[in-house]
Amino acid sequence: MKLLLINPNISDSVSQLIADEARRSASPGTEIEVLTAPTGVAYIETRFEAMLGAHAAAQLAAQHHEGADAVIVAAFGDPGLMALREVLPCPATGLTEAALASACLLGQRFSIVAISQRIRAWYAETVQAYGLSSRLASIRGLDEPLDIGKVQDNQGERLVQLAERCVREDGADVIVLAGAPLAGLARSIQGRIPVPTVDGVSSAVRHAETLVKMKAGLARAGSFAPPPAKAHQGLTPEVAALLAKAQQGRGAAQ
Amino acid sequence: MKLLLINPNISDSVSQLIADEARRSASPGTEIEVLTAPTGVAYIETRFEAMLGAHAAAQLAAQHHEGADAVIVAAFGDPGLMALREVLPCPATGLTEAALASACLLGQRFSIVAISQRIRAWYAETVQAYGLSSRLASIRGLDEPLDIGKVQDNQGERLVQLAERCVREDGADVIVLAGAPLAGLARSIQGRIPVPTVDGVSSAVRHAETLVKMKAGLARAGSFAPPPAKAHQGLTPEVAALLAKAQQGRGAAQ
Amino acid sequence: MKLLLINPNISDSVSQLIADEARRSASPGTEIEVLTAPTGVAYIETRFEAMLGAHAAAQLAAQHHEGADAVIVAAFGDPGLMALREVLPCPATGLTEAALASACLLGQRFSIVAISQRIRAWYAETVQAYGLSSRLASIRGLDEPLDIGKVQDNQGERLVQLAERCVREDGADVIVLAGAPLAGLARSIQGRIPVPTVDGVSSAVRHAETLVKMKAGLARAGSFAPPPAKAHQGLTPEVAALLAKAQQGRGAAQ
Amino acid sequence: MKLLLINPNISDSVSQLIADEARRSASPGTEIEVLTAPTGVAYIETRFEAMLGAHAAAQLAAQHHEGADAVIVAAFGDPGLMALREVLPCPATGLTEAALASACLLGQRFSIVAISQRIRAWYAETVQAYGLSSRLASIRGLDEPLDIGKVQDNQGERLVQLAERCVREDGADVIVLAGAPLAGLARSIQGRIPVPTVDGVSSAVRHAETLVKMKAGLARAGSFAPPPAKAHQGLTPEVAALLAKAQQGRGAAQ
Amino acid sequence: MKLLLINPNISDSVSQLIADEARRSASPGTEIEVLTAPTGVAYIETRFEAMLGAHAAAQLAAQHHEGADAVIVAAFGDPGLMALREVLPCPATGLTEAALASACLLGQRFSIVAISQRIRAWYAETVQAYGLSSRLASIRGLDEPLDIGKVQDNQGERLVQLAERCVREDGADVIVLAGAPLAGLARSIQGRIPVPTVDGVSSAVRHAETLVKMKAGLARAGSFAPPPAKAHQGLTPEVAALLAKAQQGRGAAQ
Amino acid sequence: MKLLLINPNISDSVSQLIADEARRSASPGTEIEVLTAPTGVAYIETRFEAMLGAHAAAQLAAQHHEGADAVIVAAFGDPGLMALREVLPCPATGLTEAALASACLLGQRFSIVAISQRIRAWYAETVQAYGLSSRLASIRGLDEPLDIGKVQDNQGERLVQLAERCVREDGADVIVLAGAPLAGLARSIQGRIPVPTVDGVSSAVRHAETLVKMKAGLARAGSFAPPPAKAHQGLTPEVAALLAKAQQGRGAAQ
Repeated sequence: MKLLLINPNISDSVSQLIADEARRSASPGTEIEVLTAPTGVAYIETRFEAMLGAHAAAQLAAQHHEGADAVIVAAFGDPGLMALREVLPCPATGLTEAALASACLLGQRFSIVAISQRIRAWYAETVQAYGLSSRLASIRGLDEPLDIGKVQDNQGERLVQLAERCVREDGADVIVLAGAPLAGLARSIQGRIPVPTVDGVSSAVRHAETLVKMKAGLARAGSFAPPPAKAHQGLTPEVAALLAKAQQGRGAAQ
Repeated sequence: MKLLLINPNISDSVSQLIADEARRSASPGTEIEVLTAPTGVAYIETRFEAMLGAHAAAQLAAQHHEGADAVIVAAFGDPGLMALREVLPCPATGLTEAALASACLLGQRFSIVAISQRIRAWYAETVQAYGLSSRLASIRGLDEPLDIGKVQDNQGERLVQLAERCVREDGADVIVLAGAPLAGLARSIQGRIPVPTVDGVSSAVRHAETLVKMKAGLARAGSFAPPPAKAHQGLTPEVAALLAKAQQGRGAAQ
Repeated sequence: MKLLLINPNISDSVSQLIADEARRSASPGTEIEVLTAPTGVAYIETRFEAMLGAHAAAQLAAQHHEGADAVIVAAFGDPGLMALREVLPCPATGLTEAALASACLLGQRFSIVAISQRIRAWYAETVQAYGLSSRLASIRGLDEPLDIGKVQDNQGERLVQLAERCVREDGADVIVLAGAPLAGLARSIQGRIPVPTVDGVSSAVRHAETLVKMKAGLARAGSFAPPPAKAHQGLTPEVAALLAKAQQGRGAAQ
Repeated sequence: MKLLLINPNISDSVSQLIADEARRSASPGTEIEVLTAPTGVAYIETRFEAMLGAHAAAQLAAQHHEGADAVIVAAFGDPGLMALREVLPCPATGLTEAALASACLLGQRFSIVAISQRIRAWYAETVQAYGLSSRLASIRGLDEPLDIGKVQDNQGERLVQLAERCVREDGADVIVLAGAPLAGLARSIQGRIPVPTVDGVSSAVRHAETLVKMKAGLARAGSFAPPPAKAHQGLTPEVAALLAKAQQGRGAAQ
Repeated sequence: MKLLLINPNISDSVSQLIADEARRSASPGTEIEVLTAPTGVAYIETRFEAMLGAHAAAQLAAQHHEGADAVIVAAFGDPGLMALREVLPCPATGLTEAALASACLLGQRFSIVAISQRIRAWYAETVQAYGLSSRLASIRGLDEPLDIGKVQDNQGERLVQLAERCVREDGADVIVLAGAPLAGLARSIQGRIPVPTVDGVSSAVRHAETLVKMKAGLARAGSFAPPPAKAHQGLTPEVAALLAKAQQGRGAAQ
Repeated sequence: MKLLLINPNISDSVSQLIADEARRSASPGTEIEVLTAPTGVAYIETRFEAMLGAHAAAQLAAQHHEGADAVIVAAFGDPGLMALREVLPCPATGLTEAALASACLLGQRFSIVAISQRIRAWYAETVQAYGLSSRLASIRGLDEPLDIGKVQDNQGERLVQLAERCVREDGADVIVLAGAPLAGLARSIQGRIPVPTVDGVSSAVRHAETLVKMKAGLARAGSFAPPPAKAHQGLTPEVAALLAKAQQGRGAAQ
């Protein structure tokens, strides 16, 4: 099985963190490929940045999905995921969606620990779009400016403290360590947080494996069926091809 | 005052409908400029198409916002609007947001009449993202395939019937005629629907005028402040310049 | 165009604040008339006071709506607005409804800054009745007893501080300065609050102008159609006439 | 114990139905007094009518509450109830609030069977204001025009059929027969509806008795404390006296 | 009339508190019987303990309901109540359900004061299952370890302080003193809390009396009809008999 | 890895369906053990039956969890799952929770196809308890009485038709085939339903495997920490031992 992870941002150092945790998490025989967006920003904290990331993720998916058994949007907030689910010939998931699925299997209310204050509104809107606000206990974020590739090393203690406050003050049953820059942190601080602690990358890898094995089928009807055929212009050849393939062949692709 | 309307789709015929209704609605002295996306699809019905439209709208806004007093994303679903609100030096709104604001000033529960069945899920998610699901009575859409530039002529009677069913069966207090291809229809069928009837383009034009005149200020803090400065690469010069201008100058721009 | 603003309270000093801000906000050619309730209380903080204000507003509207193109209930909480929308031959809005519409066009989550602690529950219930609780970040109010006509002068600094806390601590994207006694404050403190700041009176004036120009029509069906004809007794002649006119003539009145 | 029931409408025939069912429901030793509003409409179906009824109920309560151990607003929709709870020196309830409390003790989801189509929106908003929309299965109403004093006789079979549809099609666990004109119907059709069936008048009488006996106390703080003392003018002497008594004496009145 | 109260826990001292308050609250002529679970834990704070209590309550109800006019599950959280409502030949209620019904008749938002921190999540889930989360202001609990039979004596002052904080800081209109170990406390601290204060046992006793007198009927259809007849094995004879009686005779039992 | 599946009902034929699908779904090296409740009913449709099933599941889990790496409550509705999560020394999940997690990874709104009409209320309450009602498109169930072990054979066509109606009429993006008696049906009708289709047993097996491999940790704090130590009596030795072990050793057990 081959999983394609798409980092919709330009940070190679984060892609390396993603790849490392993905390989640690994957089942034997699962191949991991990680792509880094050639255009965009260092990491996503806002809706504008997410819009850029969504577009970049779609371009990469269109170019590279061939041969992948599932695609993972490897940024918290899942930019572009819902769009890709309409057109890809295989299952797709994202770090937030997958982490929340894990959290919901481990407790009733979860908190998200994040890398900045600014990112909190964007995460809250993501949780709301997934209909899970009633299970969100809180979102807490780091205050200090950050070096995105080293945030685990520089701020690990602070992140553990934030998680403890989520449990003690906000009533969290589960902690989600959010954002690709924190990939692998749950593993390295194992046992220090007194409730189950979830990592986005490993959740996405494992749930993607499950989706592949479940063979639940792709949507030929409903709101995730491929977009109806219609005039278009100026799309990259890969995006145009992806659209055409989805419109013509999804039934056969299953 | 100059309003910049961005059709995030490639249909010149729809841009003409938008421009016509915008000019009929605007106050004396308001200049209307309508842009058509050079890349994308004919009209948006799905999340993938909305993702393409959002990116195209952002590119156009970055290139052409200079001199505009407000920007309008001229497609129902408002692709890219929340992103643009973080970076533009002027107010921004969109057809859905503006139409729902009008509807909320005219009654308690509104229905949306739309151009296709498929588009309904995307509209429902847009309404939910705006937190207004409890005021949504129903979304009804046309069944038959459509010629996007002529839908008002070909299906006008059917649209009126759908609106009447929304009132009689779904409890709608207000009807929203949704989608840029229906721009101006509310005006031409005036008096035939027994509840207040709202058009997206005229709502957006009038609310944009209001936002300009209100001088409420732009966000220098909170979740609509400009994205924090950080590394980026491969952005178009216009998008990069827009980001930089927002980060440096929003205070001064007010 | 003539707008009739009804202060459902007895405070002439507040009516003056309302009139001043309404005239500053109105478009050229818009005539502003402000009425003060002859019976009632100084300002509304509770449900009982709102009930008194709603009845007074209805009496004034019945007596004086002739010649008005739109009616504005000029107190936060909009006492009587939904009732008047069923019977008036023209559009109607209120300070809260209009301010929330403005806020929703400027950001995702808004906070309300209010003139007292006691008033907070009444405002929260008003926001909930409009289905907008999910977009309400917080309501903060002044602690000290107040001189209603001079609260802007005496407590302006404190109100700015409350607004800043709403942004910093509660995640507000927009501030609504609530209550007719604060009419015009947004204008005088412009630029001091780091997010868009909304005033109820100017919002109501501008949105009322828009409703007049939109010609969306009045409800002949649905829950805002006039009350069905039935026996009544003891109503003031003006209220009885308003009811009768609505029942007979709403179609023609459009 | 003496219970004061206030019919906020002018229909003596309905007051008689209320009084009959109240006396059948009351415990031995409970005295029932029923007042009919001298001004207003025959029965409430809309927000405007409810506003009139609320004001009439408040006037009657101010004039006649002396000597009552509890006050009941005897119309579905509870016009004025929340306002009166702030100022009366005794517990107060209303037909809807009480019927919903009964329904919630008998099952998880309830439907409301009502006397007209038009009334449905007003009832839905009342249920929503009580925060109980998630337990509302449906509201069904009679189609035909009605003779308010004889609706039980003329339309009894039709009402039973509507209730059966609520159970079979809408998933209702409990039926609420709504509106003072249906007072006593639950008793007369006992056993014909296959789920527990609730009457507003008997619910209000019994819950009022309970509130009197519970001696839970009146609010001296929070949002149901009496309105703060402030200038007023033009109130009827009885309303002014009620306000003054509440402001001065609620602690002592307990 | 005879009311059967079932303490689903093993604490005789708490059963005594329940019996004392039940007898103080009951109407003349109402007989009170209190049973203590022979198996289970001292008091319920968690879902696992509630599951044990639900099963114990069902066994006791099956064995002892004969002759009772109504059954009360006498622990906060109402373990087993919804299950018993499907099978008992008489009305059933529980401390939480009854206390919340009382609270909803006394104000808009209520807070719960509880005997421990741990119990808060279980109470919050109970309120949510009743669809009343929007009326819940807060849940506050004691910090210190407790002697369950003496918590009123040892911690009475602390409980009053918690209630005052609920009013002042959380916006509570009503206080619910939660948990059978606090039975009677509302009575003994009467007047010390500045808002109406509700006790679960007295609420349940009075509402049970009302349910008996209302004769609203039992469900023969809908989700509280008896479970459909089907194979079973290993049930205690009393539970098997209760199921069989419900399936065969509910109509006749009314 | 060993997974313990507990059928909380007495139907051996259903246990066989569960075991077959579990073994088809499990990864190589995963051992499957299925237990059937010695006491209870044939299958769960109501709250009373779920209460019996929860207790039976807890007894079985207490007796047999030793050596299991994860425990699965193998009935839709997950009776006892939240309770077991507080006390077991390993992860636990259930058919509903797991199926909904799968559904949420495959689309935005899901419908549940179930084996009877009666079961619908119980399933709706389960979805609501998980906070996922906003993603539930509908629940449709079979009308005819059923032979629980042969429902797939006898009613397979009817179940496919119900699923198609969920897609076409209710807007479902994903179908959940609900209830252990339908275990394996998704596999056998693969490709006949035009949207992704989810099975509870295979979802639970795969998600349980993921939970084991994730090593997210068990709760030592928060609402899923073990119940506080306190007096108990009459518990089975296995339940008492499970409680004691959880209270003493959860930290060490991780």
